[in-house]
Amino acid sequence: MSHEYPSQLLANAVEAFASLPGIGRRTALRLVLYLLRQPLANVEGFAEAVARLRQEVKYCHVCQSISDKDTCSICSDTTRDHGTICVVQNIQDVMAIENTGQYRGVYHVLGGVISPMDGVGPSDLNMESLVDRVAEGNVKEVILALSSTTEGETTGFYVSRKLSSYDVRLSTIARGISVGEELEYTDEITLGRSITDRVVFHRD
Amino acid sequence: MSHEYPSQLLANAVEAFASLPGIGRRTALRLVLYLLRQPLANVEGFAEAVARLRQEVKYCHVCQSISDKDTCSICSDTTRDHGTICVVQNIQDVMAIENTGQYRGVYHVLGGVISPMDGVGPSDLNMESLVDRVAEGNVKEVILALSSTTEGETTGFYVSRKLSSYDVRLSTIARGISVGEELEYTDEITLGRSITDRVVFHRD
Repeated sequence: MSHEYPSQLLANAVEAFASLPGIGRRTALRLVLYLLRQPLANVEGFAEAVARLRQEVKYCHVCQSISDKDTCSICSDTTRDHGTICVVQNIQDVMAIENTGQYRGVYHVLGGVISPMDGVGPSDLNMESLVDRVAEGNVKEVILALSSTTEGETTGFYVSRKLSSYDVRLSTIARGISVGEELEYTDEITLGRSITDRVVFHRD
Repeated sequence: MSHEYPSQLLANAVEAFASLPGIGRRTALRLVLYLLRQPLANVEGFAEAVARLRQEVKYCHVCQSISDKDTCSICSDTTRDHGTICVVQNIQDVMAIENTGQYRGVYHVLGGVISPMDGVGPSDLNMESLVDRVAEGNVKEVILALSSTTEGETTGFYVSRKLSSYDVRLSTIARGISVGEELEYTDEITLGRSITDRVVFHRD
């Protein structure tokens, strides 16, 4: 019996929630007491959704994204451009780019970025499967869509080196000021980069 | 298949977390992807802790607090003062008061406060069992430890009316400025109340 909680069942459930990132004990207790007030079937449904995801999740054997089948819905979509691969860190990035509605190619999910501080090296990423896809010879362009951080840039550099011997175009998403952002509030590194990477739209 | 999520299993798990109060879809996705990276046994343990709590939870038949047994550890503790009942809104309040180490009596958990806006009336609270405890005749004092809100005050008023015909002392926890709080930053209603409820500590 925990000294702090009046019930071991309660203590266990609070511990479970408090083990999640960004959720402290106070929030965990609030969530658990909320669940206690919900109908039994709802709470069992919650627990089942969590357990089943972890038990039954699959990863697309082509792009390594999360999928219900062996090949994800994007990789099995014949209307998409399979000659263009967008390399991203994780599934959230796939979803963010899909939400723009601006991209018709396919993806490759690395599953992380190189970060010596966190003990993540190149071998921890889905790198070989990307090289294999490019080595097949049907890919025309690989777009690096990685975060503008040291880890993202290191990873991008590593990917481009791994692919440098193949006949494939390498590009990276544009860095610059946000649409709607005011110049005076833009940090100077981004502003500097937006000038060196400027886009020419008229030549006289 | 959700348009937004690449997997129905993922969509279900995100929906489950996003149904919790204060958790939006973005946070829910972050939590779900975190769980996906954890060992299977951990995630199954998480799901089981949540389901078991809701399935097996008991409420103390005396004070209505959450308990693993029919009578909670506080109500079955013979060293505590069973002649003093502290009336609180919920289990968090029991835990908060226990953490002060200043209270040796027992509790009564109402399970809410009267709130017409939220459709909570007196009959939704554990009120009759409180009256029954007082009617037994062994209770000397009932301390109202309710929030200093309209709902808390209304509930306190209702409880005192229900107990007015019994030979029991009724008290309420002191309202005033927090220990360590500076006067100039105290809201004026609290400050006003701290003057009218002032404590005399020396008479000449």
